[in-house]
Amino acid sequence: MENTIKNQAEAQVITPTQFLEHYQGHRRLTRKVIEAFPEKDFFNHSIGGMRPFSEMVKELFAIAVPGLTEIVSGKIGDFDEHRDYGATKAQFLEKWDQDTEEINTLWSQISLERYQEHVNLFGQYEGTVQSSILYFIDNEIHHRGQGYVYLRSLGIEPPFFYDRD
Amino acid sequence: MENTIKNQAEAQVITPTQFLEHYQGHRRLTRKVIEAFPEKDFFNHSIGGMRPFSEMVKELFAIAVPGLTEIVSGKIGDFDEHRDYGATKAQFLEKWDQDTEEINTLWSQISLERYQEHVNLFGQYEGTVQSSILYFIDNEIHHRGQGYVYLRSLGIEPPFFYDRD
Repeated sequence: MENTIKNQAEAQVITPTQFLEHYQGHRRLTRKVIEAFPEKDFFNHSIGGMRPFSEMVKELFAIAVPGLTEIVSGKIGDFDEHRDYGATKAQFLEKWDQDTEEINTLWSQISLERYQEHVNLFGQYEGTVQSSILYFIDNEIHHRGQGYVYLRSLGIEPPFFYDRD
Repeated sequence: MENTIKNQAEAQVITPTQFLEHYQGHRRLTRKVIEAFPEKDFFNHSIGGMRPFSEMVKELFAIAVPGLTEIVSGKIGDFDEHRDYGATKAQFLEKWDQDTEEINTLWSQISLERYQEHVNLFGQYEGTVQSSILYFIDNEIHHRGQGYVYLRSLGIEPPFFYDRD
């Protein structure tokens, strides 16, 4: 009986640690996509009137740490996808790596019970903690997929989709 | 004490039902992207030497129901992303809708305890049940994001990313 209760309590579709690793694995791949862009194309290349990949990355920056900070603190902040992170890929990558650490720190402050809690991020995006974080990840995959087309159109082979190391 | 045990057992990052709804929400959006393509462009339009969107959808077909069938049955099958589903968008959409029902049926046969089980899908893709299903979803988001660029390059506005109805 003790064992049954223990197993039931431990049975998870995905644990918080696995969920974090899933996110960081995707972030490692996105980092490789940033690296794969030639410096000027990261800031200028575009197809069909869409944003350059650097602008998409600014959106990812506006979501990841600010969104998790709201989940942890409960305090609503501004959604701002136009912040200035510099004019070089190196500066974007430095910010990327800082966020990697911050995400780990913030994640450790989200208890298992909180994932089903309702949140209203940036005062406008309703969902649960889990659906919000999945949205962060899905949105990153979505824009990174667009980055793959940008790279291919430049004649550059993107990293393998399954490469998350 | 009873309540504590109950709450612990029920605390889930994401429940199997939410996970299915997450997948089907993404699939509803992908269906809208298929619909948004002009008939001939669905089969022919390409950027940077990439596959037309119809070929990407064939890959999604090769993964979703065949992958879940393996998870449920434990029997290894072939990964075949070149099956013939017809030469019209209507035929692809019909197959899409059949798969929607099949996915619901298969999902109901995956118990909570199985999500952490090791699988080797199509005899070559190692992971857990949860990481495999997340891969199915992420791969669909990735290719759909590429479909968005195809649509934009054709001057067509894609559906909103958050439209999962």
